[in-house]
Amino acid sequence: MQSLQQKAAEWSGVASADAFSIDETNLFHRLGLQTFVDLSTAFYDSFGDGRVFADEQLWFRSIFGESKKEDAIQNQYEFFVQRMGGPPLYSQRKGHPALIGRHRPYPVTHQAAERWLHHMEQALDATPGIDPDSRIKMMNFFRHTAFFLVAGDKLKNPAD
Amino acid sequence: MQSLQQKAAEWSGVASADAFSIDETNLFHRLGLQTFVDLSTAFYDSFGDGRVFADEQLWFRSIFGESKKEDAIQNQYEFFVQRMGGPPLYSQRKGHPALIGRHRPYPVTHQAAERWLHHMEQALDATPGIDPDSRIKMMNFFRHTAFFLVAGDKLKNPAD
Repeated sequence: MQSLQQKAAEWSGVASADAFSIDETNLFHRLGLQTFVDLSTAFYDSFGDGRVFADEQLWFRSIFGESKKEDAIQNQYEFFVQRMGGPPLYSQRKGHPALIGRHRPYPVTHQAAERWLHHMEQALDATPGIDPDSRIKMMNFFRHTAFFLVAGDKLKNPAD
Repeated sequence: MQSLQQKAAEWSGVASADAFSIDETNLFHRLGLQTFVDLSTAFYDSFGDGRVFADEQLWFRSIFGESKKEDAIQNQYEFFVQRMGGPPLYSQRKGHPALIGRHRPYPVTHQAAERWLHHMEQALDATPGIDPDSRIKMMNFFRHTAFFLVAGDKLKNPAD
């Protein structure tokens, strides 16, 4: 059986080594806390105009329907900061990231992964201060991780 | 509803702040790679006599029945090294730890958590070079994390 990691690489088209090249450079030291706050704010809210929380596609928007926007933003940037070389803000507040377990309530399909990535690319474009090398590293990480979660989602229905 | 983190704290008796005090000290730098290899070897194998893999209690031993001992040892010490301040050995090889997702095939009950912790205490005693302060920090982390996984296990049967 293919591992979660192998499925993530195959489905995302991003090799594991490229996805985890974020570990070769400390992106938190390079970009700083505010850049991560700005990125997650752009992702969820597009600085007040809504983005994910105002997605024109109801099926995607409804995945976030039970969440508070401020909580979603904080959860995301604290995880990114922790995972990309900064202080363990996420674990201090919420414990282990447990990415698959915490995404269990949501239908993380291929289509949902692509929609998430679409919004994240827009958010990266809207966030000043993210240099091209950091952008590539982050997108590889996001793309691989999104499909890692698709692979994790399928554990719920092993017969599919 | 209680969060995973709240359940972990309540059931383990270890407050989250104590569990994640491993982030205040770099235990990898303090203890070194070989200590982590020794610990996981002691945990699974007791240096050749078997421990987890030769547990007198079949119900517990059988949880590991499908795993190769060498893989189990490597998976564990690479995760510990990565989580306790060392290089991201686990993610480079296997991707996100995804603790709840990866434990999904196993019955992580309260009883299993206590049995795991029993073996881990014995393994800590059998591993030279772990000073008392490190031992306390690690046991708090292990105990809290074991019950975090019990909480994660219950997501499989939310009606329980």
